[in-house]
Amino acid sequence: MSSSASKRPNPRRPGEFELIARHFTRKPRHPGVVVGVGDDCTLLSPTPGYQLAVSVDTSVAGVHFPLDAPAQAIGHRVLAVSLSDLAAVGARPRWCLMSLTLSDANDDWLAAFARGFDALCRRSQVDLVGGDVTKGQLAVGVTVHGEVPPGEALLRSGARAGDALFVTGCLGGGQGGLKAWQAGERDLAHPLLAAYLLPEPRLAAGQALRGLASAAIDISDGLLADLGHICHASQLGAELDEAALPLCEGLVECLGEKDAMRAALTGGDEYELLVSLPKAAQKEARERLSVLGLSLTHIGVLSSRPGIRGVSASHAPGWQHFGTDQSGEAS
Amino acid sequence: MSSSASKRPNPRRPGEFELIARHFTRKPRHPGVVVGVGDDCTLLSPTPGYQLAVSVDTSVAGVHFPLDAPAQAIGHRVLAVSLSDLAAVGARPRWCLMSLTLSDANDDWLAAFARGFDALCRRSQVDLVGGDVTKGQLAVGVTVHGEVPPGEALLRSGARAGDALFVTGCLGGGQGGLKAWQAGERDLAHPLLAAYLLPEPRLAAGQALRGLASAAIDISDGLLADLGHICHASQLGAELDEAALPLCEGLVECLGEKDAMRAALTGGDEYELLVSLPKAAQKEARERLSVLGLSLTHIGVLSSRPGIRGVSASHAPGWQHFGTDQSGEAS
Repeated sequence: MSSSASKRPNPRRPGEFELIARHFTRKPRHPGVVVGVGDDCTLLSPTPGYQLAVSVDTSVAGVHFPLDAPAQAIGHRVLAVSLSDLAAVGARPRWCLMSLTLSDANDDWLAAFARGFDALCRRSQVDLVGGDVTKGQLAVGVTVHGEVPPGEALLRSGARAGDALFVTGCLGGGQGGLKAWQAGERDLAHPLLAAYLLPEPRLAAGQALRGLASAAIDISDGLLADLGHICHASQLGAELDEAALPLCEGLVECLGEKDAMRAALTGGDEYELLVSLPKAAQKEARERLSVLGLSLTHIGVLSSRPGIRGVSASHAPGWQHFGTDQSGEAS
Repeated sequence: MSSSASKRPNPRRPGEFELIARHFTRKPRHPGVVVGVGDDCTLLSPTPGYQLAVSVDTSVAGVHFPLDAPAQAIGHRVLAVSLSDLAAVGARPRWCLMSLTLSDANDDWLAAFARGFDALCRRSQVDLVGGDVTKGQLAVGVTVHGEVPPGEALLRSGARAGDALFVTGCLGGGQGGLKAWQAGERDLAHPLLAAYLLPEPRLAAGQALRGLASAAIDISDGLLADLGHICHASQLGAELDEAALPLCEGLVECLGEKDAMRAALTGGDEYELLVSLPKAAQKEARERLSVLGLSLTHIGVLSSRPGIRGVSASHAPGWQHFGTDQSGEAS
């Protein structure tokens, strides 16, 4: 981790270097790190012959997570949303870097945050190999690096007309958990709250679906918006079976029937995988995910006819930060 | 570039996807990008047998650059500070990702910002291959990837007692330029203002010094602080020759003699390289940098005696965001 110069020195202690060292400097647990935290750059040895999958996601307090969410959950969540992109392409996670922007340097908060982050690093076999700390509104950017054999990455663009659409796990957890949080729920064992604050990147599932799925995406913008990305990239349309959507347990009780369906269709922050599977691959895909203890639900089919059909109400697609129009373009 | 879900939809147009597409989607100019902007991950083909050098730096408005600085300069600067880390290890730049946090989506501002960013990409032979856009206080995180032959990266830890200390270019430009900006100077042709807002990452110099320099660092925290990092990593001390420091032209006129020296010693945001060179390598190093039109000034020597000597006044080392104590530890 490095620091960058600020024009406004702050007399508080401890200093940034000490703070970083205390909470974020850990020996790499896996091979491939030639020089880790502590120089101008991290030096890595990519696996010969593999492609490198890279993604970055920034989580802003008050936008992507509540400012007063438990620090340990925030630490988990900021890494999970980035790892979810590696899951979507079927890459094996290797390394991450963290850009931490802090309004204050609260030692207890940082310790809990680092615990949440590190626990998911450990489970995902990822090493934190660099980053920086700056002062400002609380926000965390995480760049993740994974590896995938050439030609085997799951892309949005590989789907064919007739391929069936499947989704892992259940839908609506992100919106349901947010509602539960807003209603005062604070128990992280609450399934909807856990889905929202402690999402589980589907890393094993993504890798298991390599060679089977024709296209894949993680549902971060909402099912309809992300299906739109697959349709756009693959130049297809889709027929959804609304009645087949696997709503998360407790979602209807939490949101009511109508809003539960809306959450499943348009709520972001799901971090489940939406995949297309040719008929011949469906049985094997179900079996591989069953071994992982993860459900795979058939929710529709892709067709050569443009547009998304089978959605009863006019549900707006996933939120955007700077507008509500939705071109369906992934850019 | 991807987006992440916000809980607060914003009715303004244009939408985020369109905005990203318009300003930041460009075809890669160089080989190695298998899948660029537009999927969950970027897929890259690292050069076989090379090590990957990675670094991230986040620049926050009002901390690292003035909020009202020209957007084109901000676009240049946020990339330059990250590339400077690749320069410091002598890596050849390849790819970058951008995390853009915006309080608003002003089309003109974004166009100018993208122009500044892209111009430096082009000159540095870097492709922008991914990123994300979120809503919040204006901040830009840039992750850069470079490549370096195994064992040839310039590290902070390689210096030996007796090696001489050299610095590229001139010192104090960062602080001098900030002062000029605060005094109302707005002409980017002003050399100090240019040093502050349009720093030039020493990429060619870093690569030219591979095989010659025993240690290197870019001066982002201030000369004394960054020399401290080399000393700590190499377990050495140093004797500085204060009179030899190459102050930037106009610095004394801008800051006065005392503050000019203080700026050269402790001002951050220099982005010059501080390198150690064994005697046998000095002539060749000077020649290689002379070819690049860059000066290399002898400013001291490393010794086995701990501590940094030769500094007349008690100059505080580089700023820290959360404290003023300085352990000298790079972590």
